[in-house]
Amino acid sequence: MTGLFSGTFGRGGAATAVSDSAWFDALLDVEAALARAAAATGLVPTTAADAVTRACAEPAGLDLATVVARAADAGNPVPPLVRVLQAAVGERDAAAVHVGATSQDILDTALVLLARRAIAAIDRDLAAAAEAAARLARTHRDDVVMGRTLMQQALPTTFGLKAAGWLAGLDGARLRLAEVVASLPVQYGGAVGTLAATDGSGTALREALAAELGLVAPAVPWFTVRLPIADLAGVLGATAGVLATVAVDVVLMAQSEVAEVAEGGADRGGSSAMPHKRNPVAAISARACARRAPGLVATLLAAMEQEHERAAGAWHSEWPALTDLLVSVGSAAAWLGESLTGLRPDPDRMASAVMAARDPELAGALASALAPTLGHGAAHDEAAAAVREAAATGRSLADVVAGRDDVDLTALLGGGPDVGEAGAQVDAVLAEHARLTEGER
Amino acid sequence: MTGLFSGTFGRGGAATAVSDSAWFDALLDVEAALARAAAATGLVPTTAADAVTRACAEPAGLDLATVVARAADAGNPVPPLVRVLQAAVGERDAAAVHVGATSQDILDTALVLLARRAIAAIDRDLAAAAEAAARLARTHRDDVVMGRTLMQQALPTTFGLKAAGWLAGLDGARLRLAEVVASLPVQYGGAVGTLAATDGSGTALREALAAELGLVAPAVPWFTVRLPIADLAGVLGATAGVLATVAVDVVLMAQSEVAEVAEGGADRGGSSAMPHKRNPVAAISARACARRAPGLVATLLAAMEQEHERAAGAWHSEWPALTDLLVSVGSAAAWLGESLTGLRPDPDRMASAVMAARDPELAGALASALAPTLGHGAAHDEAAAAVREAAATGRSLADVVAGRDDVDLTALLGGGPDVGEAGAQVDAVLAEHARLTEGER
Amino acid sequence: MTGLFSGTFGRGGAATAVSDSAWFDALLDVEAALARAAAATGLVPTTAADAVTRACAEPAGLDLATVVARAADAGNPVPPLVRVLQAAVGERDAAAVHVGATSQDILDTALVLLARRAIAAIDRDLAAAAEAAARLARTHRDDVVMGRTLMQQALPTTFGLKAAGWLAGLDGARLRLAEVVASLPVQYGGAVGTLAATDGSGTALREALAAELGLVAPAVPWFTVRLPIADLAGVLGATAGVLATVAVDVVLMAQSEVAEVAEGGADRGGSSAMPHKRNPVAAISARACARRAPGLVATLLAAMEQEHERAAGAWHSEWPALTDLLVSVGSAAAWLGESLTGLRPDPDRMASAVMAARDPELAGALASALAPTLGHGAAHDEAAAAVREAAATGRSLADVVAGRDDVDLTALLGGGPDVGEAGAQVDAVLAEHARLTEGER
Amino acid sequence: MTGLFSGTFGRGGAATAVSDSAWFDALLDVEAALARAAAATGLVPTTAADAVTRACAEPAGLDLATVVARAADAGNPVPPLVRVLQAAVGERDAAAVHVGATSQDILDTALVLLARRAIAAIDRDLAAAAEAAARLARTHRDDVVMGRTLMQQALPTTFGLKAAGWLAGLDGARLRLAEVVASLPVQYGGAVGTLAATDGSGTALREALAAELGLVAPAVPWFTVRLPIADLAGVLGATAGVLATVAVDVVLMAQSEVAEVAEGGADRGGSSAMPHKRNPVAAISARACARRAPGLVATLLAAMEQEHERAAGAWHSEWPALTDLLVSVGSAAAWLGESLTGLRPDPDRMASAVMAARDPELAGALASALAPTLGHGAAHDEAAAAVREAAATGRSLADVVAGRDDVDLTALLGGGPDVGEAGAQVDAVLAEHARLTEGER
Repeated sequence: MTGLFSGTFGRGGAATAVSDSAWFDALLDVEAALARAAAATGLVPTTAADAVTRACAEPAGLDLATVVARAADAGNPVPPLVRVLQAAVGERDAAAVHVGATSQDILDTALVLLARRAIAAIDRDLAAAAEAAARLARTHRDDVVMGRTLMQQALPTTFGLKAAGWLAGLDGARLRLAEVVASLPVQYGGAVGTLAATDGSGTALREALAAELGLVAPAVPWFTVRLPIADLAGVLGATAGVLATVAVDVVLMAQSEVAEVAEGGADRGGSSAMPHKRNPVAAISARACARRAPGLVATLLAAMEQEHERAAGAWHSEWPALTDLLVSVGSAAAWLGESLTGLRPDPDRMASAVMAARDPELAGALASALAPTLGHGAAHDEAAAAVREAAATGRSLADVVAGRDDVDLTALLGGGPDVGEAGAQVDAVLAEHARLTEGER
Repeated sequence: MTGLFSGTFGRGGAATAVSDSAWFDALLDVEAALARAAAATGLVPTTAADAVTRACAEPAGLDLATVVARAADAGNPVPPLVRVLQAAVGERDAAAVHVGATSQDILDTALVLLARRAIAAIDRDLAAAAEAAARLARTHRDDVVMGRTLMQQALPTTFGLKAAGWLAGLDGARLRLAEVVASLPVQYGGAVGTLAATDGSGTALREALAAELGLVAPAVPWFTVRLPIADLAGVLGATAGVLATVAVDVVLMAQSEVAEVAEGGADRGGSSAMPHKRNPVAAISARACARRAPGLVATLLAAMEQEHERAAGAWHSEWPALTDLLVSVGSAAAWLGESLTGLRPDPDRMASAVMAARDPELAGALASALAPTLGHGAAHDEAAAAVREAAATGRSLADVVAGRDDVDLTALLGGGPDVGEAGAQVDAVLAEHARLTEGER
Repeated sequence: MTGLFSGTFGRGGAATAVSDSAWFDALLDVEAALARAAAATGLVPTTAADAVTRACAEPAGLDLATVVARAADAGNPVPPLVRVLQAAVGERDAAAVHVGATSQDILDTALVLLARRAIAAIDRDLAAAAEAAARLARTHRDDVVMGRTLMQQALPTTFGLKAAGWLAGLDGARLRLAEVVASLPVQYGGAVGTLAATDGSGTALREALAAELGLVAPAVPWFTVRLPIADLAGVLGATAGVLATVAVDVVLMAQSEVAEVAEGGADRGGSSAMPHKRNPVAAISARACARRAPGLVATLLAAMEQEHERAAGAWHSEWPALTDLLVSVGSAAAWLGESLTGLRPDPDRMASAVMAARDPELAGALASALAPTLGHGAAHDEAAAAVREAAATGRSLADVVAGRDDVDLTALLGGGPDVGEAGAQVDAVLAEHARLTEGER
Repeated sequence: MTGLFSGTFGRGGAATAVSDSAWFDALLDVEAALARAAAATGLVPTTAADAVTRACAEPAGLDLATVVARAADAGNPVPPLVRVLQAAVGERDAAAVHVGATSQDILDTALVLLARRAIAAIDRDLAAAAEAAARLARTHRDDVVMGRTLMQQALPTTFGLKAAGWLAGLDGARLRLAEVVASLPVQYGGAVGTLAATDGSGTALREALAAELGLVAPAVPWFTVRLPIADLAGVLGATAGVLATVAVDVVLMAQSEVAEVAEGGADRGGSSAMPHKRNPVAAISARACARRAPGLVATLLAAMEQEHERAAGAWHSEWPALTDLLVSVGSAAAWLGESLTGLRPDPDRMASAVMAARDPELAGALASALAPTLGHGAAHDEAAAAVREAAATGRSLADVVAGRDDVDLTALLGGGPDVGEAGAQVDAVLAEHARLTEGER
């Protein structure tokens, strides 16, 4: 994702983390770690493993153009890469290259490394977005705003509680990503998973390789049982969903008719036909990026049906799907971070909408006040009838209620908008956030 | 999913666990627990909560037909259900019904209960499948079979290792399902999430409600931040993928030309046009059911973009998508359990394919034997050339190699098929399985 | 989709059109037509075909419970159905049952009939929605409303043009559905597609069968080349998208802060917690139903990868996916028809928003007026600066512009809101609609 | 899709047709055509339109780096592109740039052009694949091969008929693509679709623009009613499905145990661990590419829910989804063309499998022979019992049948394998293909 649309769909660090260069780094990191693990297991001389490590550390010295040229014919880039590496280390040390491995060992492990690195980048952007949400929750802890259900004004809540909900989602996504990253396994099984090419040292080698790379060593290869890929797909899809739901709130609150928030950035969001327009470009772009995720997750899950010891197509289809998913989620996170960091809430505007909407609150109070006399069902009906009368006559509900002699309007409207335990809930989310970020320092 | 196709797509216990009756049970369980939690919090009298509990325990005594009739107009079944419940308990105790709650509190929590119950049913079928896989892995621990990569015969492995791979996937799915189930939260926030209708006792009530139902109490409502739904979607999608990959292996091994396994069941799998056919119906059906999952997961993830305090459509779209997903995965698990439980492997047939395929093994041995002399790259090329010569002349590779004087065919072919550490890996997976099932007793 | 949620997700005629009973009707219609076609081709006596037709015309006389009971074991319902039919017509005429056919011949053709019938039901609901949109476009042809881009107020348009856009989409969906329905093929090939069981009359029989059912006769079976299913999936997905985009417009225009439309129906859209709420339930439900479609389409497209002469699972997975898709789209169409038919636009409210928003129009006029002097780029910048100044100072843009001596505010604001060729475009869409509906009478 | 995986996932001409450079060409083609159309409509001087056309014809002379740099902030590339174009043509002719247009007018029309060009490239690869399939169908018209249903050997068919089925699918996809391409509309409506910025000439200008570009002129803009995008998505998804189903047949027939076809290309399909392997890389890669499609189609269909006059995110999400879809389908088509063009069928191998499988045919003959005596049901059961006896005793079915005195084995087995009307059906498909390709010359 470079070029014309990369500023929109390849934002943040994730795109870089899955570039061709990053792919080569990951593949070479795996081959180097494998050589060292083989040396540790006694299968190859340490000097040979060192030679492989050195060659892998300098991609510029390798004929990677040949790898690119031959990857498609080989079905994947590893066979030509192995040849190039063997040539680079020379005949003497060539036996330390790709010890007992099959292409999928290298490619799957590299994909895992790549995902871990991209998720680290995503997490940085998520952390920025979370920090901004935390700041909004803290600053606007008690600022009232209309709660809206099914896109209709309902009852008052606080902007702090809205932001706390966003924060809980962003922190929840971060926790899930961290759990999946911590569970990612190495792949190592040899041609068909028996470890037959390593003279009985295969299991030990797998563990050494896992240790080298900081990955989990599974009991068997996962060549065609793709739970680790599904774990990544699931949590990235969930993260995209959290980003989308925050973004849509921003977009809705930024509507001209609502105007309770605006995005910062004077030089952004213009229109070619309408100079007065100021669009919440960051939230819109976050939404656009996040919407790529569900289809990509479906592609990865559908690809789990893999044949025998190595799948004929489904395996390959994971590569673009997972990298696109990482980039999309990363880009959405970067945009949302920008949106929330620069977000300008308008508490006065929020408050005035709440004031103008006391009628709904009054309707609830009316239903409650009538219940002891009429019973719950009839009281509810009566309150609804009063609302309809107000609407039909163009009067406020307060006017209508004032005409009744069975309730006391003043008592019903006593006090400011009731936001219940909004504040306490904000505090609870902020405390959870503090514990999470505490652990990061 | 009842009727003509329910034997195929509504198999196992999950379909029952999401029936209308199960939905009502779940909704009423939540209302009853809410009444008790409200009593425990001091918001309503215990006697009133008892009355609600009694009414909820006897759905037959409630006018549920009215609920069904009015659910669509209300947007969801809870508003009419509340009215029916209030009528059932009588005016005196009506205040103990639906205390401080909004429809989504009840519906989301009921959906969580429903999912937990359906997953319990799914897990029983998964456990049966896993047990069958464990038995196959144990029984056939050392029975050789051709490993196949990209749908081509590669090198020998064991049927035990194949079955161990299936087992690792099935147990992995079970572990993931258990983790998600243990994390499922209650929903409780009132109209817009502020807990404003419970006089400062809302947070305490939420905790009491969670305790009643064995669910987690979140710091804030998750009305539009749908991570719990995404968690369910992700893990159910992953489970479907595991079931599909095992099923496709069975289907492929049951091919007429391979015939290494057959499904049991003499009365199943016939054809209307071909009396001789014996189809692996259970594995085929498992595959069919599992294929419904990725699209449903995508629907649920796309539905995460929810507006403000309650979504206008996306929320609703979760109900059929999640129930369909539970039923599909459950049905796939049931079918796969049947397939594996009755599976009849043919170790002789497997072994004879391996014997007929020593040529590939020989090719590898040849490449290794030539490497010290020719170098790795050239040795690989030379071996490939010998394979091509054999194919071109219709001779076996052994014949071709026998004609060379730089290698010793006998030495190359010495010993039986090398399956490396297949056995040890089988043992490791079985040990993990034993630990998992140990914990269940 | 019966029961608790069927009022929401099984609305309209499509759900009935894919019921178990409808499935049996379709399967029996195909078997009956096949018998008649076989008689017409001379393969069986006319009397025998008549017997089959009679048996198929009275499902109540057939032991369909046995078919249901045995369908799953057989892999599909046709093998037991054929046995039941043979028993019903008696030994003498049994040879006229299922002549030369395989299960998939019957099931695919029945699925096509089912889809055609369900689409007829969908089309009735779409036609009602289109008629309502046409009425809105006609009635409100010249009523101004704010156009909104990226959820921001932009420039004035007319509500007639908005409705005309909806109408164009609904009519476009109807045209596409009609084209696909007209292209639907019969399936007939026998066990593996060679027509080997019909003594050289297979092609003729296929044509006769197609003629009986009003379907297209293809040159070869489409057992595993599923373009007809893909055609249905694609057009149903497109229809869902049109319904969703109209529904979201209704939901957005019904927002409390916008309130330019409301749904009719006083007894609908209440809230259990908030008696004053009036939710646009029909549009919300249309949106919820439509959102099920993309995932189902993906399932059907992914299922196109089918093996050899009959797929092992992918074929089966089409049945629930296509029926769910038909029901979802039909339900969305029914809801949207209700929404638009009862829609109550508020032209005064629309107009007052346009008046309050002359500032944007003024900004464009300012940019145009300055362009001859400053050049296009600078003029655009200058106008944007004026907008920012107005916002920063809380003045209207008109105030700011009035202070300039390089432009004439009066001239800039002369005339009412310019809605260009909105009316002519409305007329053009209505004319197309008239031509389409003309063809229906 | 450039670099390491572009040989696999960016094969064929479609990738080039959606490159950044192709995007700029398309955007500039639209702006140039718009200027000419505006001149034709009398809105701008012809000399000015010529200046715009000249500037657009030389992208190298434009500051496109600035467009790339500013596209994301603007939300899309058109606003900065318009500025760059205005600068390029100079103040005098700047009024002829972007006449009355909004960004979406240009971007949507460019996307349509891009899709049309990419589909032209896809169609070339599809035509090559179809030609190869036609050659296979013709050459192997009467070569018998086992038909396989549910992955089990069923009855004989011909390889010609298999290839004819592929051909029918590929030609069907081509026809559908051509129909959609012919229906693609121009986008032109101005800021909110009213054509208000063109002094009453907007409709005429739209028609002139459509004529310039060879596109259809719609009655209203389709800013948020995305049927044209859905049409593209649907037909590309269908094409991917056809490609996948042919590819999976190749992969399955190339299995070691089946070996009825092999892919050409001696230097392709090697393995890093197994020098003897020869994988059908082209078919595998076609399958991998095609599997990306369903998720992308779902993304595009889900994006159809677009708000008001321009969507806040859903619109943007179409750009990567549609370009990825074009590239994936194009790449799959290119790979399948390579696979089929080089495919080496082995008719002897196919025939010997048929001979070895007369038993199934015999089973059908036995059932038919017994039916007059026993009735259809019992005859079917009896034949099935004989098959089971043969399997249980390890004898051929012929042996078992020979022992019966109620049927004559010789008569049952008389004649070669019956492939019915396979040949005639092949001829019919080839005739349709000839008509299609005739039209192309």
